[in-house]
Amino acid sequence: MIVVFTGGTGGTKLVQGLQQMMAPEDSESGFARDRVKELTVIVNIGDDVEWWGLHVSPDIDSVLYGLADLLSKDRGWGVEGDSFRCLERMKQLGQPAWFSLGDLDLATHLARTALLHAGKTLSEATAELAARFGVRARVLPMSNDRVATMLDTAKGMLSFQEYFVRERHQVKVSAVRFEGAEVARPAPGVIESIEQADAIIFAPSNPVTSIGPILAVPGIRNALRRTPAPVIAVSPIVGGAAVSGPAAELMQMMGWPSTSAGVVQAYEDFLDVLVADESERSAVGSRLAAVSHTKHNSRSARVAYTNTIMRSMNDKRDLAAFVLDACAISEGAKA
Amino acid sequence: MIVVFTGGTGGTKLVQGLQQMMAPEDSESGFARDRVKELTVIVNIGDDVEWWGLHVSPDIDSVLYGLADLLSKDRGWGVEGDSFRCLERMKQLGQPAWFSLGDLDLATHLARTALLHAGKTLSEATAELAARFGVRARVLPMSNDRVATMLDTAKGMLSFQEYFVRERHQVKVSAVRFEGAEVARPAPGVIESIEQADAIIFAPSNPVTSIGPILAVPGIRNALRRTPAPVIAVSPIVGGAAVSGPAAELMQMMGWPSTSAGVVQAYEDFLDVLVADESERSAVGSRLAAVSHTKHNSRSARVAYTNTIMRSMNDKRDLAAFVLDACAISEGAKA
Repeated sequence: MIVVFTGGTGGTKLVQGLQQMMAPEDSESGFARDRVKELTVIVNIGDDVEWWGLHVSPDIDSVLYGLADLLSKDRGWGVEGDSFRCLERMKQLGQPAWFSLGDLDLATHLARTALLHAGKTLSEATAELAARFGVRARVLPMSNDRVATMLDTAKGMLSFQEYFVRERHQVKVSAVRFEGAEVARPAPGVIESIEQADAIIFAPSNPVTSIGPILAVPGIRNALRRTPAPVIAVSPIVGGAAVSGPAAELMQMMGWPSTSAGVVQAYEDFLDVLVADESERSAVGSRLAAVSHTKHNSRSARVAYTNTIMRSMNDKRDLAAFVLDACAISEGAKA
Repeated sequence: MIVVFTGGTGGTKLVQGLQQMMAPEDSESGFARDRVKELTVIVNIGDDVEWWGLHVSPDIDSVLYGLADLLSKDRGWGVEGDSFRCLERMKQLGQPAWFSLGDLDLATHLARTALLHAGKTLSEATAELAARFGVRARVLPMSNDRVATMLDTAKGMLSFQEYFVRERHQVKVSAVRFEGAEVARPAPGVIESIEQADAIIFAPSNPVTSIGPILAVPGIRNALRRTPAPVIAVSPIVGGAAVSGPAAELMQMMGWPSTSAGVVQAYEDFLDVLVADESERSAVGSRLAAVSHTKHNSRSARVAYTNTIMRSMNDKRDLAAFVLDACAISEGAKA
């Protein structure tokens, strides 16, 4: 079983690549049988938002749409070919409209909200939506309890979507906290999948606001420290900057280097291999070693460089293949 | 002030005609000034439904869309030129889909639900939507309390929408009740408008399930009996059958004749003038007199015949003009 931690749009791309590599129709993948069902994706819910009275889980939706091949290629979020008629009318009706929900996308949120109101957990609602979308991988929210990423900014305390979408992450952040995390429990299957994984992959997601909320749920970080499986992280930093979004600024705010070395620092207590972009080689090489050697005598992360920019499906597959190779190597090294 | 009681699609057509006749741009109307603001529309909420977790008020929406010139001309309900993409996706997601909500229509229900969740009453939410849609007439729900039309049928107890839309009113009804009506209070302005009206018009709506719920709210029927204003009803029955919907069957079930005479019987304790279709002249003439004379010595309804089928805006205006004339005549007769 391959377990992926993800949040945001970059992470989804790697998950798409992994699905392709683990599907039986793929002769290059080297798998003799369909392993997609052995792909477990643990998803951030810290940026979930109640919007127009509906429960929106943007990161879960990105993963579901990505795996169902419904994700908008242009936008990187929402449904390919979606329209925004309801949104336009909501604007006319004086309702908030800065968070863009398409007409097809809306159905996902209406259905999820209906399932939750009917007493289902977020896990159950996610499984139901995944099945309806024909997604075969197992998609797990990090928790069925509410965890809300809140950012202390120059414009006051903002929810993640207020910061990220409404303010286009153009306000200075002085602190991040994960409201509710301290009493949240990991969703069913999360700890078990970490314990039983053959490999654990951290997608190229923002370590602060995409992966941070997951690691803040009590029990998850400990399970990662204990697991015998190799832990591989793909750095979202390329050429000293985030591919998209505010990862670099937020990492600096945390006191970490805003390079791939900072990613190692975020995951330092459980990371085995960092997969970083070639462009990071000069900036990271020595510093990474310094960080990991100083702090962890028992576990020192190695770095493997490749192209991590995923523009095409081929890029996604190539990176997925590289990461799966790194898992095998690392597994061998550990055993 | 002209007060109209309505529910359903036929009623909306007359309300549209009245708006046109009372607008100042209308030189034929005989009104020297804009009287649209003096048009008060009291609307049935017995067929309101919670759908996908949203509060849908089909009759209020028909009136709002009708007065805002947004109503679908083909369908007679919903928004002209609407699409049904969200609905199609909801079907795929295994959610109920027999009640058709368009993508633009959806915004109305999302906005209303948000306003109600924010603590507004249905009156306030309706006024807000009306203002946003540019509706100048005053649109009042009959009550801010929940009243649900329930039908005892061959398929068990059904809500109005289950009966009307899902079962296409093809099941036999043995009884109708208005759940919650006995403890419901008229919405603010309803009783006052009946008391202060210059004329009260019952639109050509189903007397059992469109007007029945309104009359079941304690205080409304009494106010109609007491008002000095003339009360004019337009019969929804043409040539012995309802123009649309199950009015005739439901009137029979109530023990009333399924002709325009039955409409008089439904309103017998407050009606002054019935406006009926020419096609009803032979069937109704004498029986109507019999009904009203036997039961009401103090108040006997007169009948005025005209064309009541409204296909074009001209038809709507002509009928509205005829009804406004009937009001003036009746007012003169009473005074």
